[in-house]
Amino acid sequence: MANQSALLTAVFYALADPTRQAIVGVLGRGPASVSALAAPFAMALPSFMKHLSVLERSGVIRSSKAGRVRTCELRPKALADAESWLAGQRATWEARADRMSAFAERLHQEELIHEPANPRRKR
Amino acid sequence: MANQSALLTAVFYALADPTRQAIVGVLGRGPASVSALAAPFAMALPSFMKHLSVLERSGVIRSSKAGRVRTCELRPKALADAESWLAGQRATWEARADRMSAFAERLHQEELIHEPANPRRKR
Repeated sequence: MANQSALLTAVFYALADPTRQAIVGVLGRGPASVSALAAPFAMALPSFMKHLSVLERSGVIRSSKAGRVRTCELRPKALADAESWLAGQRATWEARADRMSAFAERLHQEELIHEPANPRRKR
Repeated sequence: MANQSALLTAVFYALADPTRQAIVGVLGRGPASVSALAAPFAMALPSFMKHLSVLERSGVIRSSKAGRVRTCELRPKALADAESWLAGQRATWEARADRMSAFAERLHQEELIHEPANPRRKR
């Protein structure tokens, strides 16, 4: 459970950066070499490598080396876990909103019962 | 668009902490005063207030003061935006997985066509 929270924390931290969000977007369309990934970013390679390292440590991507080429690919499980956590929070919140709405409806019904039903009585 | 990314980055950063994740979990069940929220955490109040401040700046929660009591509540829109972004990434990835799978199937069919259909030829 504590481990699960640590993984989730690492994934959210990895996503808390526009460059890393963009890398996730590119890798969603398929694996890519580090040099192809880095090309569109106006950033020194060591800085870019740090972003890849944060993503890899969080489990959002993985990389492998063949000869002199390092290739990165997305690990969709990590993103799916973060999405599930958010969906769980939404479910809790929506269940509460439903209970509030049912309660408001019951109050409204009770008011209708206790209010004078026939307006002619007031005349 | 840049603004959207900045908001998303702030939300992911706000969620990249176990204490802040726990606060989101509690507030999903309804608004709470700062003192009620802080009570279960073994943390000095100023440190706890910093976590609330990160959550509030990201738009994940909002707070209001009535007399001496500050009450916090969840703003589900911010979490929904983060969930949508993750769902979008998943859709991209799944579309690619589907294309890969269709491609592999086509290759397999073509191999069946070009392979000798009648094993008796080999005898």
